[in-house]
Amino acid sequence: MSSDNTSDGEARERLIDMAAEFYDQFAEGDVPSMTLPTRSKSNIVFDDDAGVWVYGDRTSTRSANSVNGARKLLKAVYTIDFLAQQLDEDRSSTLRELYYLSESWGEEEAQFNDQSESDKLVEDLEIVSGVKREDFHMRPEESGAKVMGPLRIREQTNRGDREIHCQDDVGQGGYQIPNNPDTIEFLEHDVDFVLCVETGGMRDRLVENGFDDEYNALVVHLGGQPARATRRLTKRLHDELDLPVTVFTDGDPWSYRIFGSVSYGSIKSAHLSEYLATPEAQFIGIRPADIVEYDLPTDPLSDSDVNALESELEDPRFQSEFWTEQIELQLDIGKKAEQQALASRGLDFVTDTYLPERLTEMGIL
Amino acid sequence: MSSDNTSDGEARERLIDMAAEFYDQFAEGDVPSMTLPTRSKSNIVFDDDAGVWVYGDRTSTRSANSVNGARKLLKAVYTIDFLAQQLDEDRSSTLRELYYLSESWGEEEAQFNDQSESDKLVEDLEIVSGVKREDFHMRPEESGAKVMGPLRIREQTNRGDREIHCQDDVGQGGYQIPNNPDTIEFLEHDVDFVLCVETGGMRDRLVENGFDDEYNALVVHLGGQPARATRRLTKRLHDELDLPVTVFTDGDPWSYRIFGSVSYGSIKSAHLSEYLATPEAQFIGIRPADIVEYDLPTDPLSDSDVNALESELEDPRFQSEFWTEQIELQLDIGKKAEQQALASRGLDFVTDTYLPERLTEMGIL
Repeated sequence: MSSDNTSDGEARERLIDMAAEFYDQFAEGDVPSMTLPTRSKSNIVFDDDAGVWVYGDRTSTRSANSVNGARKLLKAVYTIDFLAQQLDEDRSSTLRELYYLSESWGEEEAQFNDQSESDKLVEDLEIVSGVKREDFHMRPEESGAKVMGPLRIREQTNRGDREIHCQDDVGQGGYQIPNNPDTIEFLEHDVDFVLCVETGGMRDRLVENGFDDEYNALVVHLGGQPARATRRLTKRLHDELDLPVTVFTDGDPWSYRIFGSVSYGSIKSAHLSEYLATPEAQFIGIRPADIVEYDLPTDPLSDSDVNALESELEDPRFQSEFWTEQIELQLDIGKKAEQQALASRGLDFVTDTYLPERLTEMGIL
Repeated sequence: MSSDNTSDGEARERLIDMAAEFYDQFAEGDVPSMTLPTRSKSNIVFDDDAGVWVYGDRTSTRSANSVNGARKLLKAVYTIDFLAQQLDEDRSSTLRELYYLSESWGEEEAQFNDQSESDKLVEDLEIVSGVKREDFHMRPEESGAKVMGPLRIREQTNRGDREIHCQDDVGQGGYQIPNNPDTIEFLEHDVDFVLCVETGGMRDRLVENGFDDEYNALVVHLGGQPARATRRLTKRLHDELDLPVTVFTDGDPWSYRIFGSVSYGSIKSAHLSEYLATPEAQFIGIRPADIVEYDLPTDPLSDSDVNALESELEDPRFQSEFWTEQIELQLDIGKKAEQQALASRGLDFVTDTYLPERLTEMGIL
């Protein structure tokens, strides 16, 4: 999938192409079908050129040779029709709205049984058409993150353009990333590096301590597992502005997955890795080594933490020396720590000591 | 508790007063103790003047006549010392930071065992001192909501004042409410009413359809159970700008609690009702009656839904004719519906038909 934007007209055309293919299959007397890459952990491979994990060669086929398969293709055609019309009218909608909207379709067999069905279909359409959901004007439910730092942007909103400086023109809460960050144009900046932060409490600490200002950092609040909009913006900041991207999370297996989704892409959306993933992103911490080095307050690993760590040891995305060493150390010490645990050394420790030390070690400062 | 802001100096003074009282108790040879209202459902009463639910007359006493009680008071004194110093230095911190920070206190007996202990202590200090957490400079973890509508505000940030128009100066994502919304001053507005919206998907629908612009509505995204900052801002919009406040949620018992927390205050923070609750807030829907009237797509009530509805029938805050009728209807039909289910009537149904009809019935339009 190209990481460029697809224009509305182009997205519409590719949708119609898919429907046309079904039509041609019918016309030639073939049973209509749609072929997709198999979407499982066993079918993701590392793309050396792009430096991200993408789907491999294994495929699955949806064919109308069963009632179930035929129903799936019928739903696809109805959805294509809706999306094409939405693009025509320059409207947008959410995945949940699509699910409910199907109830208004005259053909009952085309209606979705639950939202996971319509969500999955939209992902299938993304993969087959090579157009991403955002370019179909499907908005995610989840909001993007908040941004604070020396960056001036222009956002194209549905009520005109807005020019916003992400320090001078925003409140303490920062600039709210829109659902589709490709409506943002970067105008000018004094940013030296991007600092993605997992928790709101830590994000607020950095902003209160003026870390963005002192170090020319662009602080991006991930808010747990980052929304697509946040990952997309992070990638664009790296690619277009040539900025180093760093990720600062809690020190537990779930947080390493947060780093992984910024850096490597997720299994569920491996078809979007080139669009969403920033393989050059670097992990700041909390590393298991930090727990030892800074003697941080910890909690014991739960059984599910241990299982998650062991599964990460097997995960192709965590096969580096760094991660193997850190995960094994963590299993060894049996402890995890939150990023706010740095407050046990005082409220300024994170901005005066921990981050400058780590960023220097990593060659960012 | 006064709904006015408490100055830093005043907040500090009231904290020191609490510590001084322990000192006086010691000096007079009494066992130090602290008396608090009992914080349970059975001890909340309706305050007719303020129109909110507050704690009743039943009290509990923390006394140093046991090791456990003495330890609690010791922790209180250490926390008071920290908060007084924080106010002195014009710093702030989160509840989680306070918990971790206690690890740096020399006296081990004063350290908190877990965060629920420090959270609860801060609430106790709020109640006894009559000063709210925000005025101790304790920031919540949870971010406030996003706001979109014809309102110009001035926010006092820790890097200077910012003037922001909540339509013209923000992106599609809107204005991000800061953790302490009392740093906001309302400058001018064309708002006719406040519309609090539970889900991000519906908030985005209203903004895309330009509902805020067409109806002079201030759209406030609640994002599930609203943060204190969101409830505080909503109350201020009502009290200071004399604006009607309406709440638009899913049609299930958990969403009625979201309405309840905006309108009536929560049991956990009944001491803050006068500061956070907007008793005049009106519920738009989704009402069980809407499920019937608009023939919305539904899900069946689960056992926990039924239990929650039955518990609401017993809750003093839901004893009105409206709520009794609606909850009984819902138990009768055995169904619930989400606000985005309105999309089954088309993407514009909510802004062209549903909201205008409901707001007219309610006398807002």
